[in-house]
Amino acid sequence: MSLSYESSGVSYDQLDAFKRACQRAARTTAGLLAPHGYAEPAATRGESAYLIEAADHFLAHVEEGLGTKNLVADAYYEATGGAKGGGKCFYREIAIDTVATIVNDLVTCGALPISVAMHAAVGDSAWFADEVRASALVEGFAEGCRRAGAVWGGGETPTLRDIVNPGTIVLAGSAIGKISPKNLRITGDVREGDAIIFLASSGVQTNGLTLCRKIASRLPQGYLTPIGHGDARTFGEALLAPSVIYVDFVRACQQRSLKLNYVAHVTGHGWRKLMRLEEPFVYEITAPRPAPALFQFLAEAGPISLREMYNTFNQGIGFAAYVAPGIAGAVVAAARDCGHDAWIAGRVKKEGPRKAVEIPSLGLVYEGDTLQVR
Amino acid sequence: MSLSYESSGVSYDQLDAFKRACQRAARTTAGLLAPHGYAEPAATRGESAYLIEAADHFLAHVEEGLGTKNLVADAYYEATGGAKGGGKCFYREIAIDTVATIVNDLVTCGALPISVAMHAAVGDSAWFADEVRASALVEGFAEGCRRAGAVWGGGETPTLRDIVNPGTIVLAGSAIGKISPKNLRITGDVREGDAIIFLASSGVQTNGLTLCRKIASRLPQGYLTPIGHGDARTFGEALLAPSVIYVDFVRACQQRSLKLNYVAHVTGHGWRKLMRLEEPFVYEITAPRPAPALFQFLAEAGPISLREMYNTFNQGIGFAAYVAPGIAGAVVAAARDCGHDAWIAGRVKKEGPRKAVEIPSLGLVYEGDTLQVR
Repeated sequence: MSLSYESSGVSYDQLDAFKRACQRAARTTAGLLAPHGYAEPAATRGESAYLIEAADHFLAHVEEGLGTKNLVADAYYEATGGAKGGGKCFYREIAIDTVATIVNDLVTCGALPISVAMHAAVGDSAWFADEVRASALVEGFAEGCRRAGAVWGGGETPTLRDIVNPGTIVLAGSAIGKISPKNLRITGDVREGDAIIFLASSGVQTNGLTLCRKIASRLPQGYLTPIGHGDARTFGEALLAPSVIYVDFVRACQQRSLKLNYVAHVTGHGWRKLMRLEEPFVYEITAPRPAPALFQFLAEAGPISLREMYNTFNQGIGFAAYVAPGIAGAVVAAARDCGHDAWIAGRVKKEGPRKAVEIPSLGLVYEGDTLQVR
Repeated sequence: MSLSYESSGVSYDQLDAFKRACQRAARTTAGLLAPHGYAEPAATRGESAYLIEAADHFLAHVEEGLGTKNLVADAYYEATGGAKGGGKCFYREIAIDTVATIVNDLVTCGALPISVAMHAAVGDSAWFADEVRASALVEGFAEGCRRAGAVWGGGETPTLRDIVNPGTIVLAGSAIGKISPKNLRITGDVREGDAIIFLASSGVQTNGLTLCRKIASRLPQGYLTPIGHGDARTFGEALLAPSVIYVDFVRACQQRSLKLNYVAHVTGHGWRKLMRLEEPFVYEITAPRPAPALFQFLAEAGPISLREMYNTFNQGIGFAAYVAPGIAGAVVAAARDCGHDAWIAGRVKKEGPRKAVEIPSLGLVYEGDTLQVR
């Protein structure tokens, strides 16, 4: 049987119903902004970052979590010797991932992160007794903040016995960002004919890890399985490559006056996230890039169908920008100047009320009704 | 054997070492604020809220978690019938607690919360299938935001299989606050002779729950045990009274130009938190209020020594303000006008380099070296 994300135990339906209830209740509190001199701009609910508007700036607020990627780091650490046997500890990378998941959501509205806070909840305070791992986590979080151009603004490290499993940790956090001047806000004013720019990911980043863990559990060599396809890394090493942080790209576009009509952080829901914008468009991807080795390995090891792969994983794409075709080359150059692998991957079409992501070269189409969450 | 917080399994030593490592690494990122037009003010690291400074305002950032209080709500729900038997669900109160723990930390620097985000991580998305509980959580979070005068600015609800125990939830979140004009910042310029104002708590609030759970596990009737001492509630009901939110008190003082030299949110470390300020003072508490029934019950049921009770629990005090003696009456009136039970509880003394909390009527003294974390 082909594996899917739902079969790995994550039900987006129940979660999404709760999220929608939260959004409804949260909307009723918008009036509380007025005494502070702020207001809620139209269409910020459901975007990746929450915005509040003052006369001359926006503030942005994001709360995000890493997900279960640290369990892969734990398993890889154990498989290579653990704390006592000099195992390979990827907690520096895991901390960068944690910052990445927060700030990559934040920049989608055009806000640059100013302060990032860490939330690290353990089941047993003995988690911190492994100094190699604890130091890696601390150093990685600071490194993530540097890559994001944000200060590490404190955090919280509770011990949650009987809530968090002993030996594990919940990694999450929050960020404050700012858009100033206000015209740097990314509003989603996408037009027919806009170019779609893709920025490469480093691997799965922080998405689809529950499914990856299930696959690892079925492999005789687990995370030590070589992924092949011309890549010398093991499954664990490839999964644990730290996420790319895309803040520098958004900042570079702002500094060069290159207007980003919309951007999407490609996370949960795979490439369906490309149609996150409420207004209906058809996103035609003509240059999807060959799937990197890790994704070829995952598709075979699952096995996972091509449709499900693009439904779940980022397939080598971490960030997408939608821009006027006349500046597409300059936007790609801005990305490359920041060290990103970037290219023009497709274009935006208007087909009345239809919303879809089409990848003709792969024979894949995702209609709008396959993406319920916003 | 008398119970203590350490014996209930929470080691502050390992946690505090990690927190200090985080603070050291976080300090190295302060220079990243300059391109955003902000700077890190002196002495903000280690305070309950992280501040950043612009020409005409401060922004404040807090990330905080509820701790394990929701396990008490879970146990009480089960003991009274659970989801199927019409059990008494306290998740509305638990959500208010979550907001309270975030915003009460934030206001300690004088910042009023503008936006609060929720972090709700489950081990299994089936957690959200209990609609009574899920709705209570949503409604309570919105109610907490209303009490705090802040908008509910989004959040995150991940499913963390194998990290979070199925059936439980990690509740936490973050807030953005602002201080404007800048002279409303609470800086800790406490002076000898300052009055100490106490504001009552509603019970244990969010502090010492691990120990309370251990005590419940030893009682034949568990959370259904009547607490007595003139209070008709059961142990569970008394523990689950929602935390008081003190934002209105700080706002009222600001509006009445009543300068708060310092305030302390009395949480972990009990009354030792009263000497949280770095500069050494001796805090003499002459009117500690009689310990409410819940704390008398806890002391007997543990048993827990008087010294350990004040070392761990808030003992009926949720918030303390240090003000010039001439305005003490007006500050108490401001608190009462917001509906808080408040009174002048003691005064600040200077004894050279000595830092201590003294409660002469109870024969208790806590020297500064008993509080390592800041």
